[in-house]
Amino acid sequence: MNPILIIGAGMAGYGVLREFRKRDADTPVTLITADDGRVYSKPNLSNALAQKRSPAQLAAMDAAKAADTYRARILTETRVMAIDPAGHAVSTDGGDLAYGRLVLALGADPFSHGLAGEAADDVFTVNDLTDYALFRAALEGKRRVVILGGGLIGCEFANDLLLGGHEVSVVHLGGWPLERLVPEPAGRALADALAARGVDWHFGRTGRTVERAGEGYVLTLDDGSRVRADLILSAIGLRPRTGLARAAGIETDRGIVVDRGLCTSTEDVYAVGDCAQLEGLVLPYVQPLLIQARALAATLAGEPTPLAYPAMPVVVKTSLHPVAVQPPPMGAAGHWRVEGDGEGIRALFLAPDGGLLGFALTGRHTGERARLAEQVPPMLA
Amino acid sequence: MNPILIIGAGMAGYGVLREFRKRDADTPVTLITADDGRVYSKPNLSNALAQKRSPAQLAAMDAAKAADTYRARILTETRVMAIDPAGHAVSTDGGDLAYGRLVLALGADPFSHGLAGEAADDVFTVNDLTDYALFRAALEGKRRVVILGGGLIGCEFANDLLLGGHEVSVVHLGGWPLERLVPEPAGRALADALAARGVDWHFGRTGRTVERAGEGYVLTLDDGSRVRADLILSAIGLRPRTGLARAAGIETDRGIVVDRGLCTSTEDVYAVGDCAQLEGLVLPYVQPLLIQARALAATLAGEPTPLAYPAMPVVVKTSLHPVAVQPPPMGAAGHWRVEGDGEGIRALFLAPDGGLLGFALTGRHTGERARLAEQVPPMLA
Repeated sequence: MNPILIIGAGMAGYGVLREFRKRDADTPVTLITADDGRVYSKPNLSNALAQKRSPAQLAAMDAAKAADTYRARILTETRVMAIDPAGHAVSTDGGDLAYGRLVLALGADPFSHGLAGEAADDVFTVNDLTDYALFRAALEGKRRVVILGGGLIGCEFANDLLLGGHEVSVVHLGGWPLERLVPEPAGRALADALAARGVDWHFGRTGRTVERAGEGYVLTLDDGSRVRADLILSAIGLRPRTGLARAAGIETDRGIVVDRGLCTSTEDVYAVGDCAQLEGLVLPYVQPLLIQARALAATLAGEPTPLAYPAMPVVVKTSLHPVAVQPPPMGAAGHWRVEGDGEGIRALFLAPDGGLLGFALTGRHTGERARLAEQVPPMLA
Repeated sequence: MNPILIIGAGMAGYGVLREFRKRDADTPVTLITADDGRVYSKPNLSNALAQKRSPAQLAAMDAAKAADTYRARILTETRVMAIDPAGHAVSTDGGDLAYGRLVLALGADPFSHGLAGEAADDVFTVNDLTDYALFRAALEGKRRVVILGGGLIGCEFANDLLLGGHEVSVVHLGGWPLERLVPEPAGRALADALAARGVDWHFGRTGRTVERAGEGYVLTLDDGSRVRADLILSAIGLRPRTGLARAAGIETDRGIVVDRGLCTSTEDVYAVGDCAQLEGLVLPYVQPLLIQARALAATLAGEPTPLAYPAMPVVVKTSLHPVAVQPPPMGAAGHWRVEGDGEGIRALFLAPDGGLLGFALTGRHTGERARLAEQVPPMLA
């Protein structure tokens, strides 16, 4: 019998493998990854400095240990070049592999920062443990860090770098951080809390060029202003990896389109995690990923399990002023009702009949997220 | 053979009937409606005053003419009380009816305004042609109209009443009109244009109580301020009608859940229009409704037609300052880039790689909507 083949060694790929092995000890599974296959939790990459954890400490185990633990064949440093759905095989830079069922756990790519200038290639992105190790090494002895992007990852890195003793500037095109997720007062509360610890925000701005200057860099913004940096980190958003699927004739949109069984448009090919799009939603967060991994593992183990999502608040791990947000459904009628004090914001998105459809909590109010989540309709009933 | 049974005589119900008859002249179709079954275009209800069209002129034909035109049996003033999916029948206040296939074109209910006070029952809502005729009759000789809600319908009515010579106040909980659809500068442009013609906006406010005062009313807002009115119209949002489906064990969420074939969770039962939810989306707009009606008609005529949506800008028919908006996908990375002048706003929602994911146009810029829509990814590929 051809094995279950999982492409990707992030939380999604290993999550499916781990959950599958809880249900099926015997069916052969092969996991292919372009990197070294270490098992780690990606969300930790943006709060490891404050916790004084080295890149090595972030890895729970290496590929050999994972292969043993999960009784799987793990092919590291191996790139999948193409999928042949009709032949039930993939071709890699190490040869072809047949599959019985294929799981695409490909993750997402950072958007390019698009900066011009001689030092554009020096800008870091941190999208996996290898990236993080390089970033961490480069950070040694550096003081001023400029972060491009004030979304979830940008804010978490800003928080972490502050706690690590760095001077931090954030260049963000939005009017406030997390502006796609939270109403303005909640974003301002986070911005103010980080500013109070020294973050220098540049809202409504984007970077244009980056040049070397002494040991460091000068970043020129779109209004002509200049920001000095010893190191620049880009965190302006992620894009699901869809190219491999699209080239194989598998339906893609923003992500790889899957049904509630996490099956793509092509038989025996599944997608899970940041690369997948289900009912219009791409949810690059931990909780949906784990729910997906469990459901897909059950399906692969012979117990078809259609996915359902409860309300799943997203937690932004900015320890200096945490944020928990459950965005309201797109287009739902209603309004944000915002209360706040010096210790945080409590914004409730209420339907005209008073029903709770979403919320954004900051600071001490984040403790209410579990209680409030119970009152919000499920994201996917 | 039991007929195709359509419940609802709005644009969705008649839309499916009309499109079906283009493809199938013979299969028996029955349409049931709780009202008088006149054929009319609901979007016209919020711009009929300016066009000086009477309620009677808004009706393209009556039920008898529609029955003849579409070769259908049309049961007016008939309420469906329950659906029996196992028995392929519905029970109505006029007896039971068997169906071969059932189309739920139930529409949406206005949210209740929730006002207290002796005159709460005097507040109008306009959700169908009968409502409109009552509203129009009550409006005779009245000067000051207060509208509750500054969303799409509230703004269109404000525009229409202004052009009809009325004094208009709008009470709106959001910080600007259409705040769930457009960024602030676009909303402000609309607000300013209507204010220049006399609209008195009350942003961030909601009504609490309404009392009679002389020939008119006094509306007390949540900050204690008072607004005088000769007539009050509530337009605070719509809620898909799901009760009938839910009671029959058909899956509902915000709307009646359908797949791309517009089939509900129950065999031979379909849903279309404002009551339907497809891939998480409830889209109570004309263009998706017409696309749905055509696709469902084809499916019912024996040519299974899965739904796809192109980009579908929503046009707000505020003739004094029109708005066209294509909201970006929920959670997509990107930012609004806003340009504007005295003649309108042009806000583009751009992904970090520069790709256009949505837009909001006002005033003279609305002319660009078709060109821009071609550059936006389809809403449902």
